Amino acid sequence: MIATKAYAAQNAAAPLAPFNFDRRDVGVNDVQIEILYCGVCHSDLHQVRDEWGGSIFPMVPGHEIVGRVTKVGSNVKRFAAGDFAGVGCFVDSCRTCPNCQAGLQQYCDNGMVATYNGLERITKKPTYGGYSTQIVVDQDYTLKVSNKLPLEGVAPLLCAGITTYSPLRHVGVGKGHKVGVLGLGGLGHMAVKFAASFGAEVTMLSSSPSKEADAKKLGAHHFALTSDKNKMKSLTNHFDFILNTVSAPHDYSTYLNLLNTNGTMIVVGVPPTPSAIPAFDLIMRRRNIIGSLIGGIPETQEMLDYCADHNIVSDVEVIDMPYINEAYERMLKNDVKYRFVIDLASLKK
Amino acid sequence: MIATKAYAAQNAAAPLAPFNFDRRDVGVNDVQIEILYCGVCHSDLHQVRDEWGGSIFPMVPGHEIVGRVTKVGSNVKRFAAGDFAGVGCFVDSCRTCPNCQAGLQQYCDNGMVATYNGLERITKKPTYGGYSTQIVVDQDYTLKVSNKLPLEGVAPLLCAGITTYSPLRHVGVGKGHKVGVLGLGGLGHMAVKFAASFGAEVTMLSSSPSKEADAKKLGAHHFALTSDKNKMKSLTNHFDFILNTVSAPHDYSTYLNLLNTNGTMIVVGVPPTPSAIPAFDLIMRRRNIIGSLIGGIPETQEMLDYCADHNIVSDVEVIDMPYINEAYERMLKNDVKYRFVIDLASLKK
Repeated sequence: MIATKAYAAQNAAAPLAPFNFDRRDVGVNDVQIEILYCGVCHSDLHQVRDEWGGSIFPMVPGHEIVGRVTKVGSNVKRFAAGDFAGVGCFVDSCRTCPNCQAGLQQYCDNGMVATYNGLERITKKPTYGGYSTQIVVDQDYTLKVSNKLPLEGVAPLLCAGITTYSPLRHVGVGKGHKVGVLGLGGLGHMAVKFAASFGAEVTMLSSSPSKEADAKKLGAHHFALTSDKNKMKSLTNHFDFILNTVSAPHDYSTYLNLLNTNGTMIVVGVPPTPSAIPAFDLIMRRRNIIGSLIGGIPETQEMLDYCADHNIVSDVEVIDMPYINEAYERMLKNDVKYRFVIDLASLKK
Repeated sequence: MIATKAYAAQNAAAPLAPFNFDRRDVGVNDVQIEILYCGVCHSDLHQVRDEWGGSIFPMVPGHEIVGRVTKVGSNVKRFAAGDFAGVGCFVDSCRTCPNCQAGLQQYCDNGMVATYNGLERITKKPTYGGYSTQIVVDQDYTLKVSNKLPLEGVAPLLCAGITTYSPLRHVGVGKGHKVGVLGLGGLGHMAVKFAASFGAEVTMLSSSPSKEADAKKLGAHHFALTSDKNKMKSLTNHFDFILNTVSAPHDYSTYLNLLNTNGTMIVVGVPPTPSAIPAFDLIMRRRNIIGSLIGGIPETQEMLDYCADHNIVSDVEVIDMPYINEAYERMLKNDVKYRFVIDLASLKK
């Protein structure tokens, strides 16, 4: 067993606090990773506070993990000690269902094993995430990370990155497309970077005028204030795609009407209540709405390689582990550009 | 001017009653058609009663028109007197916008000219539909109708047929696909015929057990009672496509959850209020919802030709013109298999 230091929540009302536990020994197919950085995702907070129900405590959150390989099992050929490696939102899946076979492990028919707040497939032991010093993961669920990019900016690619890269690729965003990105946060800022990198003409749709300069710095060509009725009217039937990252309740109809014929709204934010969708908004221009969840292992690797080739990372604020509870409070106020990333060196001292 | 007998509503509260008016003279690009049959679409009733607002009275409804060409303008080469011809939901559009150029006149940026309850593009005179003895239509908005099929069964193809054919083709329904059709009415019965004809495995999803035998006669391979919770549960993640024809308020979520990974719900019914859609239903399997409105002129011709080649017509109950008000009442109770079609001979007596 591998002694591991972490931060955990003991229950839904408790702040995160130091916690020690043991990782499993490295099996023949396992990769042991010394965690260097772990991104802080809004879903960490939802689960720590049991806002989705079914949370398993104590909980060590974190599923945007990058680190250095320290040991590998005897069957592992793709990784060696000293390599950089990454772990995203899941660490296992059934491997046999059609979705797993298609490399879409995130949609595993038998349920993927979440990196934390999940149960290991065989042992049924709880999984613990990346707010910790070490992790042991099956090689098939471990990603290769380039040494070309700053690792702290790579960490959020494992969730915020793939969550936006995957649907933009799936719907075929590219040159000549007009793409709107709704909401400038952890997901939105990656969506702007990817859509612009794919050659699209990108418009940031935001309710805060203060975000215009930032959006343009990230690569957006245009900015539209969602409260500006004239501006919004001028964008009627304008976009080929809108990537909707907003997870607060909001009116889908307004944005559906900005889509041109055959336009697609991609939903990656999850509002707490169902959204009201008038059928006419879809029918009148053959518009569609598609949801998308993170990405499978092959596409996550493709995304990491793409980012290394195109020099794309997340914009982050690096924090020490003890700052996490304050970071959560700031995250609730969207007071972060655009992702907190924990420097795990702060936990090893 | 061409003297025309018709049935019209004089206002939103009035029953349909005899009405005489003049059609325009046949212009150089026009086709004059003696109407033989006209289908009765639920949208006729909505507009006659001004349920969508903006209705123009007197109103002569009807946009599922087949008849015999009696005269053509000097520029018309594709039609000659004696040919069978059809007219669907629109009789003109701007012809210059990208949608018109793409043959998607139904999504014309400047608004298609509806066959009735619309205004002619140049003259701004109201259009009158197919509950009448004659119609004069620009050749570019007139469809060729084969003499292979019974004309009364062809009439509903001009709306109910193309409304279901077009999205099934757009999303690529074919061999190996599992397709659910929700609702067995005018649209649903055509959707079953087309999906089965395209090679899909078709399941009728209906709230009436009495419809099982009918659905199977139409070509459905399976029947699922939507109130049977166990049956519905067994169909979780089952379908590649669901064609949703229901225009009463209903729970989309139930049916979204029957879609497999990358599954698509096609919406052609328009419930009177927006439908509540939980983002998780879309996100968890990359499901999507797409709307679709009738079809463009080229695809409507393709559909009519396909039906002639594959011996597909609508199942109809032929009625005389004076029966129309009673037919509306029965339509409101879904008491028709599956489309009323007016025999216009009854108006010529």
